[in-house]
Amino acid sequence: MIQEGKSNLPKGKERFIEQLGERKLIETIVNKFNANANRRIVTVGAGEDDCAVIDVDSARGGRKYLVVTTDTVQESTHLPKGISPFQIGWTAAAVNLSDIAAMGAHPFAFTVAMGVPARTRSAFVEEVVEGIEKCASAYHTAVVGGDVTRSKEVILTGTCLGFADSPVRRAGARVGDLVCVTGSLGNAALGMNLIKRFRDTEIKVPVKVEEIAKKALFQPVPRIREGIALADSGLVTSMIDISDGLALSLAELAKSSGVGFEIYEDKVPILSKELRSAEAFDLSSIGVERRALAFYGGDYELLFTININIDANGLKRISETINMCVIGKVTPHEAGIYFKKGEEKEKIELIGYQHF
Amino acid sequence: MIQEGKSNLPKGKERFIEQLGERKLIETIVNKFNANANRRIVTVGAGEDDCAVIDVDSARGGRKYLVVTTDTVQESTHLPKGISPFQIGWTAAAVNLSDIAAMGAHPFAFTVAMGVPARTRSAFVEEVVEGIEKCASAYHTAVVGGDVTRSKEVILTGTCLGFADSPVRRAGARVGDLVCVTGSLGNAALGMNLIKRFRDTEIKVPVKVEEIAKKALFQPVPRIREGIALADSGLVTSMIDISDGLALSLAELAKSSGVGFEIYEDKVPILSKELRSAEAFDLSSIGVERRALAFYGGDYELLFTININIDANGLKRISETINMCVIGKVTPHEAGIYFKKGEEKEKIELIGYQHF
Repeated sequence: MIQEGKSNLPKGKERFIEQLGERKLIETIVNKFNANANRRIVTVGAGEDDCAVIDVDSARGGRKYLVVTTDTVQESTHLPKGISPFQIGWTAAAVNLSDIAAMGAHPFAFTVAMGVPARTRSAFVEEVVEGIEKCASAYHTAVVGGDVTRSKEVILTGTCLGFADSPVRRAGARVGDLVCVTGSLGNAALGMNLIKRFRDTEIKVPVKVEEIAKKALFQPVPRIREGIALADSGLVTSMIDISDGLALSLAELAKSSGVGFEIYEDKVPILSKELRSAEAFDLSSIGVERRALAFYGGDYELLFTININIDANGLKRISETINMCVIGKVTPHEAGIYFKKGEEKEKIELIGYQHF
Repeated sequence: MIQEGKSNLPKGKERFIEQLGERKLIETIVNKFNANANRRIVTVGAGEDDCAVIDVDSARGGRKYLVVTTDTVQESTHLPKGISPFQIGWTAAAVNLSDIAAMGAHPFAFTVAMGVPARTRSAFVEEVVEGIEKCASAYHTAVVGGDVTRSKEVILTGTCLGFADSPVRRAGARVGDLVCVTGSLGNAALGMNLIKRFRDTEIKVPVKVEEIAKKALFQPVPRIREGIALADSGLVTSMIDISDGLALSLAELAKSSGVGFEIYEDKVPILSKELRSAEAFDLSSIGVERRALAFYGGDYELLFTININIDANGLKRISETINMCVIGKVTPHEAGIYFKKGEEKEKIELIGYQHF
């Protein structure tokens, strides 16, 4: 299922966490997490006491609101075949940071509860911890607390805290606003397709395509910088992250804002430039439908609406700051959510990832 | 294993969460959690957006530090036989609130990630949610966010946030300080003994004893009020909650503070007054060793040290405010941790609950 953690110990000398003991295991983790903590903000860090302690005024930078989110990744439902321990940890942090990004907030602290089977190699846990730390610190977020328990499968629950002055809500889109997305969609979905469909077949895709698509799936990038830039622009009327595919995120935004959406299918940015240009790669040659890629999540891009009437140059200014596309416009609620091609309209089906 | 949730639906009409669907399930949970939220503090509540949003200045009441903790309870390792769904939820909140209590902080927000098997009855989930909500709101804490995933076993990870002006650390005990505990120890351990030892035997314990002991085990009381009173007293030099038994908590406090402890065994309050007086109940008659009860956790009392030199009337004043006992005194680190009976000394073994 999941790749094993690397270990420099010769076989037979590898340690499992049940041999290491809980307290020793926690010590190893704690040292990793506290190495880079900013002690002006994090007065008491992970594993140093019953709670972590954060100096509110140092952490908030004058911002009014605390934002909080919690999200879980686990072996049996969330972790694709071939993902490394480092990437499992990275993903656990990234999915939470993505929710912070969707509010346009500044993340500052993260906690993680890890469930691992007793017969897990300690190198595995150490690499998971490394992945969590690398992702969090890439976005100036301190890992301030955690918990390790013995469980039947690998399960990581993260909680992320951020500060924002004007958190961007899902409710707020108005008729006439433009509908936009950051980056490109379908990269992670392509990675999933490559894993699922081709593991037992002879079909070959270019190595570079496979590499890029799997990395998109295994190591998603939370759009923190983009979320903050969008919130700061003052033009954004609503925002959500695309965790379970474009269709479901559109439906959530439509429901919260009480609007409909008209989406121009050919404007939806499917696959990154890097993937599209990779060595004569043709989606249809491997039987993957272009549109379907947008309907499965995993890229963790942001879907948002902007009111261009606030500032005529606003769209141009944002486009120069972040990588984004206009993909449609906001319509009245009664109109529903549909694709528009010339005069043709086609209802968008609500498909995507659901847990139950 | 775990008691099933009650349901008013006739057999065959009961709904499982896999039939209900993720979005419907979340709607039910969200309504429960947001019913009592203080909207001046919780601007955006559970399930209302990508993150919950909290007005920092309304929530903090002028306090300087944010404290954060995360803790997990799960079926295979934490949940005793016979616990009800309501009590599972209660426990998930209580264990986190207990860590907030141990810092002497005021809790204000809680998030919970729930993993449940697909074939779980929706009544079960609703009762778990009810338990979380009841425990959190009993301590003025809003459940502001959560997550539900399908997992192999019931697993609940809570994260609790609080504010404090002077968080009480584990480090801080000084030679000569008095060692104290709130409430009484061993009640939950007696409950566990009654479940484990007597389920297949003829030994009968008084019904009232069984009821009280099991309630202590199934529905622990976080010492929030006591923690705050102790922090506010200005006399407390160190504090920790007794989650894994007295011995392990003494060891943690000793390590963090760089001290030793001399404990008067006959001063350790074993079993609540209610249990001790219950219908001619005699521990030895059921083969339970008194001392052993203190070595297993689950009561979530507070262990703390106080410096009586700060205020000669301080001990009296605290004793009038909260239910507490002096059980020993702080000694130099080299002396270790031991029981003292007259001139006799006996080393305290480091036994208690460890996860791995």
